[in-house]
Amino acid sequence: MSTLQSTFTSGHRHFLASLFPGDALVLDTASLTAFATDASRKSAMPWAVVRPESTQQVSELLRWAQAEGVPIYPRARGTNKVGAVVPVQGGIVVSTLRMDRIIDIDSGDFVAEVEPGVVTSHLAEAAAAKNMFYPPDPASVKSSTVGGNVATCAGGLKAVKYGVTRDYVLGLTAVLPGGAVVSFGSRCHKDVVGLDLARLFVGSAGTLGIVTRLVLKLLPLPEARASVLAAFSSPEEAVAAAQSVFRAGILPTACEFMDSSAMGALSRLFDAEWLHGAGGAILLQVDGISPAVDAEIASIKEVLQTSAPVYLMAGQGAEEEQAWEMRRQLSQAGYQLGPDKLPEDVAVPRGRLLEAVAGFRAISAEQRVPVIIFGHLGDGNLHVNTMHDASDVAMATRAATCRAAIVDLALSLGGTASGEHGLGLSKREHLTKQISPAELALMRQVKAVFDPQGIMNPGKEW
Amino acid sequence: MSTLQSTFTSGHRHFLASLFPGDALVLDTASLTAFATDASRKSAMPWAVVRPESTQQVSELLRWAQAEGVPIYPRARGTNKVGAVVPVQGGIVVSTLRMDRIIDIDSGDFVAEVEPGVVTSHLAEAAAAKNMFYPPDPASVKSSTVGGNVATCAGGLKAVKYGVTRDYVLGLTAVLPGGAVVSFGSRCHKDVVGLDLARLFVGSAGTLGIVTRLVLKLLPLPEARASVLAAFSSPEEAVAAAQSVFRAGILPTACEFMDSSAMGALSRLFDAEWLHGAGGAILLQVDGISPAVDAEIASIKEVLQTSAPVYLMAGQGAEEEQAWEMRRQLSQAGYQLGPDKLPEDVAVPRGRLLEAVAGFRAISAEQRVPVIIFGHLGDGNLHVNTMHDASDVAMATRAATCRAAIVDLALSLGGTASGEHGLGLSKREHLTKQISPAELALMRQVKAVFDPQGIMNPGKEW
Repeated sequence: MSTLQSTFTSGHRHFLASLFPGDALVLDTASLTAFATDASRKSAMPWAVVRPESTQQVSELLRWAQAEGVPIYPRARGTNKVGAVVPVQGGIVVSTLRMDRIIDIDSGDFVAEVEPGVVTSHLAEAAAAKNMFYPPDPASVKSSTVGGNVATCAGGLKAVKYGVTRDYVLGLTAVLPGGAVVSFGSRCHKDVVGLDLARLFVGSAGTLGIVTRLVLKLLPLPEARASVLAAFSSPEEAVAAAQSVFRAGILPTACEFMDSSAMGALSRLFDAEWLHGAGGAILLQVDGISPAVDAEIASIKEVLQTSAPVYLMAGQGAEEEQAWEMRRQLSQAGYQLGPDKLPEDVAVPRGRLLEAVAGFRAISAEQRVPVIIFGHLGDGNLHVNTMHDASDVAMATRAATCRAAIVDLALSLGGTASGEHGLGLSKREHLTKQISPAELALMRQVKAVFDPQGIMNPGKEW
Repeated sequence: MSTLQSTFTSGHRHFLASLFPGDALVLDTASLTAFATDASRKSAMPWAVVRPESTQQVSELLRWAQAEGVPIYPRARGTNKVGAVVPVQGGIVVSTLRMDRIIDIDSGDFVAEVEPGVVTSHLAEAAAAKNMFYPPDPASVKSSTVGGNVATCAGGLKAVKYGVTRDYVLGLTAVLPGGAVVSFGSRCHKDVVGLDLARLFVGSAGTLGIVTRLVLKLLPLPEARASVLAAFSSPEEAVAAAQSVFRAGILPTACEFMDSSAMGALSRLFDAEWLHGAGGAILLQVDGISPAVDAEIASIKEVLQTSAPVYLMAGQGAEEEQAWEMRRQLSQAGYQLGPDKLPEDVAVPRGRLLEAVAGFRAISAEQRVPVIIFGHLGDGNLHVNTMHDASDVAMATRAATCRAAIVDLALSLGGTASGEHGLGLSKREHLTKQISPAELALMRQVKAVFDPQGIMNPGKEW
């Protein structure tokens, strides 16, 4: 890593201007500032931003960057919450947003081929127009890109039934440092020839190369969907009720949870009966053909009735959409409890959820800072956001203590420091709590096969 | 690779005897013969077979093997069809069959922890006893092991809806050449910390290390299942009818196909009305809660009626089980058409299935050797077995030509030489038709991170 350049030279500028004419090269400070940060609020100025339009252009860039030892940071919409795209060691940010073509959506193959800069919801809508289904739907689905989702192995609401981004990547084309263009996988739904390097790229956070084309699996579009919203006296009862659904042999499409703090925050933005007086709520969705959906909703209601809900509603259409819109607003609603947020996205084994929720609440009480707890109960993946006022130094210190204790509790329950966001910059200190030196050394050696000089997204996890 | 030992010395024998007392070490020729081959009929004698019972024993073995340059071949039940476990360069076969404990099946976490030698159906049964579901079910499910399934990324009948073995591996422990014991992943259903090396092991065919423990995801056990069997005038109509089910927005659990040759072979073993006079058949299964299953079966029948089936039956229970039993006997039934078999398991993009089936039949006619075509239509993954009499030299030559043409046709349709079995020894010549030199070099460099001296399963794909 010591071979990396630390200054931007006139020679660098000259090369970039020749490869990226016009506004495909960004150099002015005001414009660069927008590329210095992401949703983490971590920040570092890049030397330049380039906007390639083709695999060939990316290849020429990475041939040069490898020879020159110039750090490279792939970036799409910058919705990342942990600073994963922040150019922390200086260098060139490569925006994939001009590589945003949906190349092919094939209703014979049930395959989409796309460039990385396609917004995920645009892909999902284009597939739906042909009666097909692209399931991964992180909360950022309307603003984040497929390429970004692949870089983080994004999950989302429907991961319980449909899995995460990894499960939809059949193949990809990537450019490696040095400029080599490689492709792995195929349009086949099953292919076991060779080591599975396509999926190694999924979740690699831009540390191996730049993905320029993706082959994605599509499913038949479910005919119908419906949801059940149930509120309970305590968050623990809500968690236990959700677990009873799984035990009844039902695999919901989505199974979301929110605790009383989350509901309290929502109640300041929305007027809904179920937000008042309950300690926790769950929101489940099922999908499929209409009669199957009706039958599953009836079963879920029957199971949940035995858990003594204080509120129970099943709905479709506008009524259902309103509940999910509230769910999507939860992260934002947290700001009702404090102007600053320390977000966590820990996951625990599903059987430890009760302990985790109780523990997170105890930590919050002990540190006297509010947390809101919500997220993907079916995956054991909880968002625990510590809300505070960063200008109050004492509170900010307690908030940081609270956040660290949340991760440590999750890890002590056999959990992970990140179920969705990755560690990036802002959670990097947890890496060695979870990954031992031998495993980390292997990850770094595997990275070095693709990126021997360490030019790809340096200063991050591995 | 040149550092590998080519002879078994008395020093080697002495070390193995000390580490593997009693019948944990196999040296006599008669016993070794059973470990020389697998379901491929390829064969090569090992120097010795060892039967470790613990990760620690495997670690000591691989520390020694690395230092001595002794080739190591992990092996479980030897059901592999392509010679992937044949000790082709001499060395030690490591049987995992004494590491066959189901360590934990947890209905809170929806997780199983197992050793690699557990037979897959035993795991599925133990999970079902706790109302949980382990979906991967290769045809060999009652004889192959979870460890073998992980080595090949086994698919199976239910892959259409539930995915393949890869999708159930949450974490694993492996021993690497040199003896290092490493663990990746966790009991969390979502975990994005670090490079995804757990899944890199899935499908790596024993070329990276020896997996000694697996953490597997379980699902809720579906309450009910039911199947639809439909026969059509031609195989092409059968394929088209299956595709109409997907277009109707239905995702079946399984979607199997058989052509008229396969049905003809079956009709010599079973007496069933639908086996006579039709050109092709499809067998679909759905699962879920009972009313949902009923609704989906009704929808599938309605869709299939529009494709003018010559036979259409929906069933549950014994009637359904009989149809699936016939499906499981298909590979064996092929021997009704010839005493020898050249098996293929190509896959093609799903939209190319009609061309593939027609092309395979044309190749069979041209070469005047029977093929039976059946398999996982929903995944585009077909088993195409060329049946012949190997003692008839002219026919054997035509059979080999037929087999090669089948793979070449699949590849020309954008397909893969293997959807399930891997390439192993007997299909190794297809590797460079599908994987280009740059990608293959990367795979070999990644392998070298784990196995720098190439002692793990040498002489196979990469």
